[in-house]
Amino acid sequence: MTVPGGHVSSADVTRYRVRPTPGARRGDTGERTTRVGPQDIIHMRRAIGLAARGHGGTSPNPVVGCVVLDASGQVAGEGFHAYAGGPHAEVVALREAGERARGGTAYVTLEPCDHTGRTGPCSGALISAGVARVVVAVTDPNPLAAGGVDRLRRSGVEVETGVLAEEAERVNAAWLTFIRRRRPFVTWKFAATLDGRSAAADGTSKWITSPEARADVHRLRAEGDAVIAGIGTVIADDPQLTARVPGDAARRPLRVVVDSAARTPASARVLAGEEPALVAVADDADVPAHLGHAVRLPRAPGGIDLHALMAELHGRQIVSALLEGGPTLAGSFLREGLVDRVVGYIAPALLGTGPAALGPAGVTTIGEILRLEFEEVTPIGPDLRLVLRPAPPKES
Amino acid sequence: MTVPGGHVSSADVTRYRVRPTPGARRGDTGERTTRVGPQDIIHMRRAIGLAARGHGGTSPNPVVGCVVLDASGQVAGEGFHAYAGGPHAEVVALREAGERARGGTAYVTLEPCDHTGRTGPCSGALISAGVARVVVAVTDPNPLAAGGVDRLRRSGVEVETGVLAEEAERVNAAWLTFIRRRRPFVTWKFAATLDGRSAAADGTSKWITSPEARADVHRLRAEGDAVIAGIGTVIADDPQLTARVPGDAARRPLRVVVDSAARTPASARVLAGEEPALVAVADDADVPAHLGHAVRLPRAPGGIDLHALMAELHGRQIVSALLEGGPTLAGSFLREGLVDRVVGYIAPALLGTGPAALGPAGVTTIGEILRLEFEEVTPIGPDLRLVLRPAPPKES
Repeated sequence: MTVPGGHVSSADVTRYRVRPTPGARRGDTGERTTRVGPQDIIHMRRAIGLAARGHGGTSPNPVVGCVVLDASGQVAGEGFHAYAGGPHAEVVALREAGERARGGTAYVTLEPCDHTGRTGPCSGALISAGVARVVVAVTDPNPLAAGGVDRLRRSGVEVETGVLAEEAERVNAAWLTFIRRRRPFVTWKFAATLDGRSAAADGTSKWITSPEARADVHRLRAEGDAVIAGIGTVIADDPQLTARVPGDAARRPLRVVVDSAARTPASARVLAGEEPALVAVADDADVPAHLGHAVRLPRAPGGIDLHALMAELHGRQIVSALLEGGPTLAGSFLREGLVDRVVGYIAPALLGTGPAALGPAGVTTIGEILRLEFEEVTPIGPDLRLVLRPAPPKES
Repeated sequence: MTVPGGHVSSADVTRYRVRPTPGARRGDTGERTTRVGPQDIIHMRRAIGLAARGHGGTSPNPVVGCVVLDASGQVAGEGFHAYAGGPHAEVVALREAGERARGGTAYVTLEPCDHTGRTGPCSGALISAGVARVVVAVTDPNPLAAGGVDRLRRSGVEVETGVLAEEAERVNAAWLTFIRRRRPFVTWKFAATLDGRSAAADGTSKWITSPEARADVHRLRAEGDAVIAGIGTVIADDPQLTARVPGDAARRPLRVVVDSAARTPASARVLAGEEPALVAVADDADVPAHLGHAVRLPRAPGGIDLHALMAELHGRQIVSALLEGGPTLAGSFLREGLVDRVVGYIAPALLGTGPAALGPAGVTTIGEILRLEFEEVTPIGPDLRLVLRPAPPKES
């Protein structure tokens, strides 16, 4: 079905079971069924779009968007969470709405927080503003912040949850992975020819992809909190692993080198510059003086224990990380199930021989193939950028 | 600029130099400049669209489209060449236009033929119909058929050539390659994972791509006149190499096996069935009885001389061929500059190890990389179909 102001498919409009709320002011005494209407979908989709504007700025917080309607259903305020420490989306939208929020509806992509952190609890702000109904996409999995929905209901506010939850989960995928799995959301980035090679037979590789694709990689680095590379890449290419994005000098992702045998040379460019660097070595490695600050992690077959590395990065508030290779490290991450997104820059070119973009990933027969799904396909200069996510497990 | 009826960019509207025509009825005495207008572009584009409808049916003839306007500029007839032996595009369009063609304009994507083959010369048909002006996209490179433009001009018909020539060349790329290079237009098709592998480490490969992609391959086979595979693929996969397309049983491309040492087993499925099969062996091969009809071709490093194979197929009127691999044969074709189009089916999956989709192609260092251009990107089920053409040589 189509309604003024946006396209809504009938699949979006679902019946939600709302559990009885103690003290609900409408005097409900049992279960009731509330229809979530097309207007709810439209406003929540707008809120999700607002949330996305916070990408790259809010870490270690989630991205959140909010739309506030007045009692007549007109949009009175909009907001999103722009940077950690800045006002929450609800606060921004309520401020814009002012008195018009009274008796109105608020759409929030994530359950309003119920704790007093750097800002006050948003549940309280919604109640004070007199909002009559709150529509939530995703309930908060963070035990520190959850409880907002309960508090709203206790105060007599009508609450719907789960509206466009899947879309709202997607926009917050990095943060939700960080909270639920207690590790960073990992994007594996590679650049290759159409036949999957990252260098020619003699090792030369400058440049397979275009300047446009290389600029896009810097944007990708700037989006995350860390950039991870293996020691093989550091020795072979001596990359800086910095995010050089015009007009965005403030973003300085942590540079991480996975270097079980502590071989990073003192002269490595990844150790230079103002951006922070972390060298992860095996706990039994013989560490030279210039790597005195290296982090020691348990050894695992083929290198260090990547789950321990993930826990270390989680502890450092790294919500999302860009894994840049090389092929061996990428294979290990994939084998351990630690890749949440793949971004491939495919050059319209063929090599036939030379190093592969991906090394052994634990697959020996076709039944073990690592299945993904294409999410985006975008021309970048003469190249193609492919974005993929792991395929959901097959239903049996 | 935009004109009613279609989108025309100002780059399309070019000045063409028309050389003086002996006996031109307008009494021209020297060079003149004729403006090709937006309407010409619109009608030629329509004619190119009509030509494309002949794809898969006209071999060994070109595809041709024709639009005929009456003297007032209204469309009076349209036609395209649908199958070899059938009426030419001009004849179809003139038949539809009837008397309205008199004093009108004909748009033809390829120079009207001037020879009497299975049908009469189209140049004569246009003259008899009284057409005053003929606009041609591509002049005919086939010495047997060329001369149509000259005959038209000698009869006093105004002729423009080269209008939308690039688009018209593209729609006839296979046939133009066949005529100009005296060999089939070769499409290399491969199916691979995102990391360029066509099987897992243990050799298993059923199925990397989806049923939708495999159905699309049958459509691709049915488009061409031949399907080529190497002996490695025949021994490993025992393919039928037939085009199984619902409702198109008539298309039976020639199945070609490149088998320098004459190893194709008597039981090979490629030798069975009603479709014709050609086994190409080296001239010094020891040929078993069941390959008695094999074609002997000069030996070349690594197998048979592929240029000799191409000449053989040209002699058999094979205008376009689909090269299906495996990786070794594909590498040889690419090294010899014999691939005109690449169609890759990319599965959203990773293997990390296993046979590569492409073997050595003569590239040892990055400067020798085989550069292509993306022409089409199409989702096919969960997979992606990428169509590429060789990049034009760089201007220095």
